[in-house]
Amino acid sequence: MVAAPHERSISPLDASAKRLLGDRRLILAANRGPVSFSALADGTLRPRRGSGGVVTALSQVSGHVPLTWVASAMSEADRRAARSPAALDHAMPHEAVRLRFASVPRSVFEGAYNVIANPLLWFLQHELWNLPERPMVGASTMRAWREGYVALNRAFAAAVLTEVPRRDRSPRIMLHDYHLYLAAEPIRRARPDAILSHFTHIPWPSSSTWQVMPPAIREEICAGLLANDVAGFQTRRYAHNFLRSVESFLPDAHVDYHTRAVLRRGRTTLVRSYPISIDVAATQRIAGSRAARRRAQELLGQARERIVVRVDRLEPSKNIIRGFAAFETLMERYPSLRGSTTFLAFLVPSRTSIREYRNYGRKVQDAADRINARFARAGQQVVRIFYENDYAQALAGLTIADVVLVNPLIDGMNLVAKEAAVVNQRDGVLVLSETAGAYDQMADGVLPVAPVDLIGTAAAMASLRAGVEHEDITWWLRRQLDDLAEIAEGRLSG
Amino acid sequence: MVAAPHERSISPLDASAKRLLGDRRLILAANRGPVSFSALADGTLRPRRGSGGVVTALSQVSGHVPLTWVASAMSEADRRAARSPAALDHAMPHEAVRLRFASVPRSVFEGAYNVIANPLLWFLQHELWNLPERPMVGASTMRAWREGYVALNRAFAAAVLTEVPRRDRSPRIMLHDYHLYLAAEPIRRARPDAILSHFTHIPWPSSSTWQVMPPAIREEICAGLLANDVAGFQTRRYAHNFLRSVESFLPDAHVDYHTRAVLRRGRTTLVRSYPISIDVAATQRIAGSRAARRRAQELLGQARERIVVRVDRLEPSKNIIRGFAAFETLMERYPSLRGSTTFLAFLVPSRTSIREYRNYGRKVQDAADRINARFARAGQQVVRIFYENDYAQALAGLTIADVVLVNPLIDGMNLVAKEAAVVNQRDGVLVLSETAGAYDQMADGVLPVAPVDLIGTAAAMASLRAGVEHEDITWWLRRQLDDLAEIAEGRLSG
Repeated sequence: MVAAPHERSISPLDASAKRLLGDRRLILAANRGPVSFSALADGTLRPRRGSGGVVTALSQVSGHVPLTWVASAMSEADRRAARSPAALDHAMPHEAVRLRFASVPRSVFEGAYNVIANPLLWFLQHELWNLPERPMVGASTMRAWREGYVALNRAFAAAVLTEVPRRDRSPRIMLHDYHLYLAAEPIRRARPDAILSHFTHIPWPSSSTWQVMPPAIREEICAGLLANDVAGFQTRRYAHNFLRSVESFLPDAHVDYHTRAVLRRGRTTLVRSYPISIDVAATQRIAGSRAARRRAQELLGQARERIVVRVDRLEPSKNIIRGFAAFETLMERYPSLRGSTTFLAFLVPSRTSIREYRNYGRKVQDAADRINARFARAGQQVVRIFYENDYAQALAGLTIADVVLVNPLIDGMNLVAKEAAVVNQRDGVLVLSETAGAYDQMADGVLPVAPVDLIGTAAAMASLRAGVEHEDITWWLRRQLDDLAEIAEGRLSG
Repeated sequence: MVAAPHERSISPLDASAKRLLGDRRLILAANRGPVSFSALADGTLRPRRGSGGVVTALSQVSGHVPLTWVASAMSEADRRAARSPAALDHAMPHEAVRLRFASVPRSVFEGAYNVIANPLLWFLQHELWNLPERPMVGASTMRAWREGYVALNRAFAAAVLTEVPRRDRSPRIMLHDYHLYLAAEPIRRARPDAILSHFTHIPWPSSSTWQVMPPAIREEICAGLLANDVAGFQTRRYAHNFLRSVESFLPDAHVDYHTRAVLRRGRTTLVRSYPISIDVAATQRIAGSRAARRRAQELLGQARERIVVRVDRLEPSKNIIRGFAAFETLMERYPSLRGSTTFLAFLVPSRTSIREYRNYGRKVQDAADRINARFARAGQQVVRIFYENDYAQALAGLTIADVVLVNPLIDGMNLVAKEAAVVNQRDGVLVLSETAGAYDQMADGVLPVAPVDLIGTAAAMASLRAGVEHEDITWWLRRQLDDLAEIAEGRLSG
């Protein structure tokens, strides 16, 4: 017998989930799943936990709501698994998650993922193009758009629709990130009653950045997002930029900046910000584990008294080269720090198949070598790079930092800033780019820097600790569930 | 005896000038002057007419108002001339312009011009940085800012103040472009009664672009512009972007988006758009000259039936490589055009001392070579580059074009678009980037393209003619004079 809600203690998030879903499952679609597959020598499929910030964040959802997660089949092994629902169910026996794959031929996925989503949309939205030369959007790119990206989004819609029980009234569907801008429209056509939301995890730049792109692409993306009931972004600025984009590119849309809503073709889409966060308890648990504490002691033993730490995927938006150059400026200007300071850089390998990333990695190493050549004493490096994916070690680094440097050129949110704030044990300073999404929430507790400003960044490397405990990952999820529930109840509209 | 105003026919511009100035001279400050100097072998100074779009535009002003023009002494010969007002007066005996130089030591000018204004501000405002690597704003850049740019602006202010008659009440002073963002403040301190305006000839990007820059630079620039009574920009979008920048960077400023005014420290600055234009009659006169008509006939004789024309300074913001790539796409997709079409590219050498410009020039030539290798027939090039500064020839090209391609990545205004519209003789089509300032005025009469969209640009290369006759250069000037006169009369305020 189930107890009546008021008789047991439930968390605000659980209450939000219950209110939105009732007896339904939440259907969530994102490019990466909680599990991916590889094929062993004998042909059997082996599941492996997914990694990456979005997966980590979305995996929290399954602790609070029954979930069907539709992901891309990204490899041949995934495509094989997609044909065997039993293998999928078997892969995650211990969780409240049902995994399903949207599966398209490899060439379609390549066009969607390796021509459009990552090299084009991700770079554009991070404003990282060297515009006089790249991108060239010609026939092959437009083919990848139509036959890759559009096709993959349709496949996602079809996979989602398969998972919607026919008798479910108003199925609740959440779509995620820049891979899936066009998935809502075909879902909406088939199920006009769906409660649909999309959340963009990366920045949404100003409309003038989108303006360089072919009209078909920018218009279809904006129109695609407007098939949702809610279009969510990391910050108010990104949400505002989206409203401006819609106004610029879709003449038949009516944009209301006051209510942050768009009316188009008889439908209203709310445009909202839901700053994403971390699982504070889990982060602190890992940082406080015996292994992490031992690693922290080892790092302390190998470093000097003052420690600067950064943790990033090794990629151009993270602004790692200028971070080192600013540290070099610090060494130049404060000779007293030279013998007493170590910079520990925990850099996670990322998209090493992309030439820009490899070139960038080489220049990062060159910058570290240059500083070590100038300032190393008695053979002890002043800049130490840890180039590996070791989350516990990176958290260990954050616990012992006097300064945590988070200086991206642009970043949708940046969870390292939030992790640093909850695990640091040394009253460390958080030096944070004003251009990171996290800055909007954390401005009061950090030292702000402008990303190209070496002197300002050097100067900011000096004591503080912020508190993000109450705006954590459940807060991010709960606010979205509540907005969707109100829509479902007909109470919240533009 | 002077006739009363109503007894003689005066143009609207002359009336505006009279209303603003009364018996005063207009004092105009801009980096380049109407004349620069070179030293002959015997040491005598030879004056030479200045060139460039801003000089050409501002030179029109002298036809309508008595003018004192303060310019940078850019060379050693200019600095010598600066010490000899007689030489300056002698250099321009036939004009109603009095020329004076703001003269600073060469090292100061180098820092202001070749470290800050052109490589930093111009690139930033055109959003042409390859941001993961450039710019690095470190100690040497900040020194060039303080000891170069700030110092040059103070020197300009001092030179302007020297030209203001002590008895003049409310002297009328117009400052121009990105070299002089900080000149108004010291002028205002010395002459609180001055009627001061600044006009930015290049784009003003969104505040998120400025956000990457050191706070000192972005704040001082915004504050510097607010020492003017009017801050003018080419388009409403740029004016809006400036208002947002002020709101982001100057917490003590109150921004009113409705009246487009900023109140700060008791002063109001109006923020306005004044789209710049051309001297229609002069342009048509040159295009209709015997020399230009003969040159047009020669060009026709060397080209095939259909002619595509572009006219640009050879630099990265003009998007010349993609223009050629789009033409290549046109040749691929319309085989019938291959034997019948010629692309005439009139490219004017620009800042060849800057490495990025030289590299870009090489790639432009490579693209032309590639297309000629593919599509030339019987040794006749399909793409012909004219790499020289020959204005009459470029206008001749515009008269005979079937298509004029103006596809910049970003452009403050772009006067080629307007020149094409008034000189073309073949009912040619104007293909125009949506990201050019001129697009805001000319949208109805052109084929719009997105700058990275090769297929769209190729498709747009197909007939039209716009009318810009009434919004010409006198209209640009007159509207500013009128706003300033109203301020002087105390009638126009935020």
